[in-house]
Amino acid sequence: MSNNVKAFGTEAADKPLEQITIERREPTAQDVEIDILYCGVCHSDLHTAKNDWGGTVYPAVPGHEIVGKVTKVGSDVKKVKVGDYAAVGCMVDSCQTCDSCKQDLEQYCLNGFTGTYNGKDKHLGGRTFGGYSEKIVVDENFVLKVPKNLDLAAAAPLLCAGVTTWSPLRHWKVGKDSKVAVVGLGGLGHMAIKLAKGLGAEVTLFSRSPNKEEDAKKLGTDKFVISTDKEQMKAVKGKFDLIIDTVPYEHDLNPYISTLTINGTLVLVGFIGELDSMLQTPPMIMGRRSVAGSVIGGIKETQELLDFCGEHNIVSEIEKIDMQDINEAYERMLNSDVRYRFVIDMKSLKNN
Amino acid sequence: MSNNVKAFGTEAADKPLEQITIERREPTAQDVEIDILYCGVCHSDLHTAKNDWGGTVYPAVPGHEIVGKVTKVGSDVKKVKVGDYAAVGCMVDSCQTCDSCKQDLEQYCLNGFTGTYNGKDKHLGGRTFGGYSEKIVVDENFVLKVPKNLDLAAAAPLLCAGVTTWSPLRHWKVGKDSKVAVVGLGGLGHMAIKLAKGLGAEVTLFSRSPNKEEDAKKLGTDKFVISTDKEQMKAVKGKFDLIIDTVPYEHDLNPYISTLTINGTLVLVGFIGELDSMLQTPPMIMGRRSVAGSVIGGIKETQELLDFCGEHNIVSEIEKIDMQDINEAYERMLNSDVRYRFVIDMKSLKNN
Repeated sequence: MSNNVKAFGTEAADKPLEQITIERREPTAQDVEIDILYCGVCHSDLHTAKNDWGGTVYPAVPGHEIVGKVTKVGSDVKKVKVGDYAAVGCMVDSCQTCDSCKQDLEQYCLNGFTGTYNGKDKHLGGRTFGGYSEKIVVDENFVLKVPKNLDLAAAAPLLCAGVTTWSPLRHWKVGKDSKVAVVGLGGLGHMAIKLAKGLGAEVTLFSRSPNKEEDAKKLGTDKFVISTDKEQMKAVKGKFDLIIDTVPYEHDLNPYISTLTINGTLVLVGFIGELDSMLQTPPMIMGRRSVAGSVIGGIKETQELLDFCGEHNIVSEIEKIDMQDINEAYERMLNSDVRYRFVIDMKSLKNN
Repeated sequence: MSNNVKAFGTEAADKPLEQITIERREPTAQDVEIDILYCGVCHSDLHTAKNDWGGTVYPAVPGHEIVGKVTKVGSDVKKVKVGDYAAVGCMVDSCQTCDSCKQDLEQYCLNGFTGTYNGKDKHLGGRTFGGYSEKIVVDENFVLKVPKNLDLAAAAPLLCAGVTTWSPLRHWKVGKDSKVAVVGLGGLGHMAIKLAKGLGAEVTLFSRSPNKEEDAKKLGTDKFVISTDKEQMKAVKGKFDLIIDTVPYEHDLNPYISTLTINGTLVLVGFIGELDSMLQTPPMIMGRRSVAGSVIGGIKETQELLDFCGEHNIVSEIEKIDMQDINEAYERMLNSDVRYRFVIDMKSLKNN
């Protein structure tokens, strides 16, 4: 048994998103059905809709920053009950048996996690459909609880932009004595600043745009460095324990690597591709500096993030849009014209 | 007061090494004078003699894998006494006050350590002269003790090739459950194999030369993988916790990165320069994999290595040469014609 629900999706890479009907399964014993209230808009949504990374199967329904209300639970579900606020991030399943899954690192599942959209749907076949829809049905192991004090719409981006920056901050043990730098001020960058500040670190923003300084300060950064200014870059040489690099396009890492402390790490979270610029090994070798990558975070870690944000009252800076505005929102994202995350108010879909 | 001693050095990048006379200081209260018995021949010696990295001041006297006998000690020296076997590695001084030095990471001294050769000599002015000489005078903080059971000549390469591979093995916590791969079988590579085996790890050698398999097995490797064979590389995908990359020239890291486990690290210890090949970020991001660099090791760590080698009876595979053969030895090193380290028997200089 399954149910038809309204969604927004696209039939091809070069077509706009439009309203379609998709199928959701009837909850199994360990499933949770969620009435979606808000869904954040991530760059991955756009890349998947346009097949930028290849592999998109159409129709594609993006959205993996999902917050809503529980409407049904299977008989074995213990984590949430009907009426609770719940959330779903970038994953709806994983093998649960590999070394990664056993360590709560489902994002690195050795058998491949099931993406919230464009993943292989184990229940209905075909591909999974994301949060640009009225409802979603998810295994309770991949359902998160949302702290009651958080603004639900502004909490949605925590599920991807939030945990993508939280996971490296935690993995590389950022705390009160840490000096963290963030490269790029967008959806990921602004969350990295808020979360690093929440963890007590001193935070610097690297940006190419002087006009971002005011916003950076408002978001809590202690220092602002124009990355194209050689003198400013020299002044922060050897300073940072961790650099969260959120830049979503090819860029030269070398100027940043020199600003790491001994044993420091630059972690790439925004760019999937090939780095044209040649890596210079001397600053790495002469300071045991690392370049690493990191993707989203595990389910346990995501819950930890949500709880931390509840305690510290941290949410994303958002602009609410209607579902029908999604194509225009994608255009604006491509022009970096968003401060700092679009979140779809799903009433606009339901009432249509 | 100071003393003239015989040494082998060069007056210019394009000249051969020949016998010269250099000055050694009279030991201060915290100095140790060592009669050099053996000195290993490192690729850095050759690079410095030929000014490959720039910055060489002539005359240059290379050599930083030094083993000898203590002949004089200053009044404050506690670590060794006259008659002891002692060793000196790549450093003869550091600031001793910066954050790195305070953590026993003199190799990352924020004020720059003093290299055993071509470093700024704080005592006599000019540059420091290395181990291709009869004697050396060194601050006791930079003097190591040599376990009595080790062959002195074969122990010399532990001071650079040994600690250069030991330090990353320890920093990245290699032990009995670890899977380690080594890229390249030369002076560094063969030590990496022996030390990783000594620590209980399963060790694989990556090589482009099938004819290295026999030697690799003799040195203790568990597995041998031809790095240009796509099928063999595919078979070890996601396998290694740590890769020690000893290759001393530009090479493509991407095929190796894919063979790292989740959270695995490839550490560069052999190549100082620019990596032409573009780094592909997906295997790094989708597995939290890192590329790092590492240089030699701290003094405490070097002593730990020597003690470990004493307990496990680990030394380098060497070919003894006379001091007068050094120019020919450099030629052979450039042709990779050494298994696996030349060590100069310093009698040949003294008796000349």
